[in-house]
Amino acid sequence: MNLPKSVRLVEVGPRDGLQNEKQPISVADKVRLVDDLTAAGLSYIEVGSFVSPKWVPQMAGSAEVFAGIQRQPGVTYAALTPNLKGLEAALEVKVEEVAVFAAASEAFSQKNINCSIAGSLARFVPLMEAAKAANVRVRGYVSCVLGCPYDGEIAPEQVASVARELYAMGCYEVSLGDTIGTGTAGKTRSMLEVVARDIPRDRLAGHFHDTYGQALANIYASLLEGINVFDSSVAGLGGCPYAKGATGNVATEDVLYLLQGQGIETGVDMDKLIAAGQRICEVLGKANGSRVARARLSR
Amino acid sequence: MNLPKSVRLVEVGPRDGLQNEKQPISVADKVRLVDDLTAAGLSYIEVGSFVSPKWVPQMAGSAEVFAGIQRQPGVTYAALTPNLKGLEAALEVKVEEVAVFAAASEAFSQKNINCSIAGSLARFVPLMEAAKAANVRVRGYVSCVLGCPYDGEIAPEQVASVARELYAMGCYEVSLGDTIGTGTAGKTRSMLEVVARDIPRDRLAGHFHDTYGQALANIYASLLEGINVFDSSVAGLGGCPYAKGATGNVATEDVLYLLQGQGIETGVDMDKLIAAGQRICEVLGKANGSRVARARLSR
Repeated sequence: MNLPKSVRLVEVGPRDGLQNEKQPISVADKVRLVDDLTAAGLSYIEVGSFVSPKWVPQMAGSAEVFAGIQRQPGVTYAALTPNLKGLEAALEVKVEEVAVFAAASEAFSQKNINCSIAGSLARFVPLMEAAKAANVRVRGYVSCVLGCPYDGEIAPEQVASVARELYAMGCYEVSLGDTIGTGTAGKTRSMLEVVARDIPRDRLAGHFHDTYGQALANIYASLLEGINVFDSSVAGLGGCPYAKGATGNVATEDVLYLLQGQGIETGVDMDKLIAAGQRICEVLGKANGSRVARARLSR
Repeated sequence: MNLPKSVRLVEVGPRDGLQNEKQPISVADKVRLVDDLTAAGLSYIEVGSFVSPKWVPQMAGSAEVFAGIQRQPGVTYAALTPNLKGLEAALEVKVEEVAVFAAASEAFSQKNINCSIAGSLARFVPLMEAAKAANVRVRGYVSCVLGCPYDGEIAPEQVASVARELYAMGCYEVSLGDTIGTGTAGKTRSMLEVVARDIPRDRLAGHFHDTYGQALANIYASLLEGINVFDSSVAGLGGCPYAKGATGNVATEDVLYLLQGQGIETGVDMDKLIAAGQRICEVLGKANGSRVARARLSR
């Protein structure tokens, strides 16, 4: 049981979370959420996305959000930039780190971004060059690593292949996403073992969804495999676009509770985190998706 | 990763679950639930409790439920019997197996049953003798094994001591309950390692609550410790009496999903199980507490 001594939590609520909530919220509410998360001690916050608001209305105003937040030293404020145009818009508002997104499933890539996996990776080449020139780090996401809503099972070798390409291209870290939440602990371990043949484990992150309730078991399994970076979403913001009414992103509070139980350092304050999550849930008018938050707030 | 090849699921929904739901339901609805669970392939169902309906109105009519269900060969239909009087009532309706309940926390024992731990154990002696004479097996529960709502932390040695006494007294299996759901994976493993010094691992069961979202991670941790019996409640019936609106018993569907993912045999049919859970949720007029059920039913 050689668990890591510390874990970096990558807070994706303001981007991956809000992007999958029905109604867009105001720039002021987004700024407040990011500032609350900074105050809670998160060292990495994915703030927004530079995409066309025609496609993702929830992410409109990301430039204004970056302009409005109180950036704290030691905290990374990142943005998703699907292409060079997005990167350029991000650089204009001094985004220090960006992320790109590829799928491990050919069908998902086609249906999600209307492009093959190879085509999406090729599209990142000029982006990677421009980011490097601007001294901006790039994080890579791979989706559907434990299952695809269209293709079903995904071979670990296919995940490894996409992850390897992102890493070779210059992504300093590759986040492996169980986009539909169908993965379980043993499969998580097998997949990680295959991907880790090509990429050092400290350059991998786990991104789990709780749609089938498996996220924390998968995170515990990943900790046992030496993974020490996890993506999560405060209050479980996001839901699951592939199963209406179901849970999506694992809640940061619940992951933090697991980590605290193992004595693993994160630098995050649970009370402030719960308050940040509950506040944004009130803005959205939705129930809190964190079990820890629900239990704590109901005492 | 030496996981067990098969796991026995102890379905506690009709007893532990319904007992903690607000409104009592009819005998006919209880009978239907038990028959549905039998049809889903569960081999162990805790059907009811022989206690005064003055104290637990939800468990009124347990004798009628036992008389009404269709018992199938190979399936154990058990009842909770807190004392000799309860056992006698259970024997009258030919209950084949009973369970007794002790706490690992002195404060919980006092507040829950108005009796010390030692006093509660002493009370089981005549019950154990009568059960043995009637050729009825007795299962032991220990509550608060990873935390107490009044005392906070509970030492694993204290859990081991109570479990050891129940085992020595003749309980063929001891179920270790994280009654308030505050336990996490590492503590689960440490506690099991201490308890397993006195009791063979194949005589221990895990009973986890999902109040803080940790149940499946704790079950995965328990599987890694060689535990192969788990209590769970269909549709997560039960809630948590210590945190209103919070989750209680882990949902059988979610545990089954985890186990199926590891290729572990249970004999349970997921579709029939989900149907059984959804049906009783409709009777109770409540949302389904299983994430797997919610995801599957929303597709």
